[in-house]
Amino acid sequence: MPEEPLPSWRTGQTKDAILSFFALVDQIPVPERVAVFDNDGTLRCEKPRYTQLEFMLRELREAVRVDPELAQRPEYRALIEEDASRVQEMGLERVLTALVDLSAGITPEEFDARVRAFFDDERHPDRDVPYRNQRYQPMLELVDALRAHQFDVYVVSAGGAEFVRTISQEFYAVPPEGVVGSQIAYDFVRDDSGVPRLVRTAKLVGGPNEGEAKVPNIQRLLGRRPVVAGGNSAGDAEMLEYAMAYPGPSLALLVDHDDTDREYAYESVAGTFAADESITQTARRLGWTVASIQNDWSSVFVS
Amino acid sequence: MPEEPLPSWRTGQTKDAILSFFALVDQIPVPERVAVFDNDGTLRCEKPRYTQLEFMLRELREAVRVDPELAQRPEYRALIEEDASRVQEMGLERVLTALVDLSAGITPEEFDARVRAFFDDERHPDRDVPYRNQRYQPMLELVDALRAHQFDVYVVSAGGAEFVRTISQEFYAVPPEGVVGSQIAYDFVRDDSGVPRLVRTAKLVGGPNEGEAKVPNIQRLLGRRPVVAGGNSAGDAEMLEYAMAYPGPSLALLVDHDDTDREYAYESVAGTFAADESITQTARRLGWTVASIQNDWSSVFVS
Repeated sequence: MPEEPLPSWRTGQTKDAILSFFALVDQIPVPERVAVFDNDGTLRCEKPRYTQLEFMLRELREAVRVDPELAQRPEYRALIEEDASRVQEMGLERVLTALVDLSAGITPEEFDARVRAFFDDERHPDRDVPYRNQRYQPMLELVDALRAHQFDVYVVSAGGAEFVRTISQEFYAVPPEGVVGSQIAYDFVRDDSGVPRLVRTAKLVGGPNEGEAKVPNIQRLLGRRPVVAGGNSAGDAEMLEYAMAYPGPSLALLVDHDDTDREYAYESVAGTFAADESITQTARRLGWTVASIQNDWSSVFVS
Repeated sequence: MPEEPLPSWRTGQTKDAILSFFALVDQIPVPERVAVFDNDGTLRCEKPRYTQLEFMLRELREAVRVDPELAQRPEYRALIEEDASRVQEMGLERVLTALVDLSAGITPEEFDARVRAFFDDERHPDRDVPYRNQRYQPMLELVDALRAHQFDVYVVSAGGAEFVRTISQEFYAVPPEGVVGSQIAYDFVRDDSGVPRLVRTAKLVGGPNEGEAKVPNIQRLLGRRPVVAGGNSAGDAEMLEYAMAYPGPSLALLVDHDDTDREYAYESVAGTFAADESITQTARRLGWTVASIQNDWSSVFVS
């Protein structure tokens, strides 16, 4: 541990809550020290659009350049024309499925190369910095402090597992198998000489990794039980509740996006119990630790 | 690396093939150094019965002790009476499903405790040694040598993922998230005060992790592509073929159980291409490296 832990966290109730948790960490057997973090909006900025959506839109532009006919598909046309009302009319699921179709039929290695090219070439549309600079400095410090206390740290995202895996090692020092995300099904196919390969399909295995589904998916894929969980939206609620249910010291941390100047201000609605409850209301009701970006973080992004 | 690598491997063609592979390892980028091993019959002895089946039979005896009525269920009665012909009549799937029912409704932590108690209490029926002593010394040396060459090593088993995870760290230094196995579905439930927990069901997610299924499951769960694969049965064939298809140096190793004196002699049949082909015939046709327990291993078990 450095002399002063969590330097980008301002002194106050939230930092105190985190430090109080660390003070109790000896009560948790080392093999049970497991921390899970949502990705978009928790470890890194998810606005103005999810990074994976930006990637998919780049894939769409490239696909249409190669085959202009594609632009006739209604979902693609609505996206290319940035027709938000038509996108909304079709529904996010239909539009996303159409976008996932763009990478059906390619191998995991080809997909990985495309995602890496995206992160190499593209910059955040508002801040004009590389996407790696969209990570939250205070959260990286928290991850480091957890590791200094012998925690294993995992990323649990509603985003595509393979998309997140391309950057998880570089961004968070989390290896590919430490990422739980939404999973694309693969087909096992053979070429004419019988040599096998895997190709992506457009089908999801087991639905999106979001909300309640995150909890069994953590157990099935990692075989670990979280004691620390970080999130920022209603889709993280059950994961945070599950960490809080650990029979010992635990930490459920909600990142509250309330800083219009340095980041974005927005609120996730539709909690577990009350459809009209905001996630910060859920947090206060259930005793989670709330990190206000405006008040608790002296700096927001890595530099 | 020790002075003499693989000390329990006898000098000969097989050891030479492994050492030749290590001589080429610089051609494989470090992040691509991925090795996968089947568990039963590859890293450890699977005879006279799968260890997981021994565990399930112990669970059955205990369940019947608590509730003698259970013995009336036909699958259980056939097992208790060791009536092999009735077990065969019912089919392995029906009998296994009945056994998986015994741990439905308990939490992952309770299941973990039961499996640990089994490994603490029980001994191998023929050799009368703890189950940890059923590991193959030459294979552990191979795993160590791979790690010395910066390989990440994973276990890919048709056995239950959660069963294998209880011992993977102690037996192989593989953490729970490094185990790909057959997956039980979990239910997310809440107690009267709303506190969530996971409970096991008797349902498999996505079928058994065996044969062709091992390949997409490795990609989906680990996000890695194997370059080295070890197996011992037809259920490992596609995984070994996939490792061999890596565009660079690769190693597909088949453990051949041909040692009646020191282990067991048996042959897995039903390969990928030819239903009547034995797995050692498949190995020779496809150019895999075959490790004969009788000829290539100077010692078999860890001591």
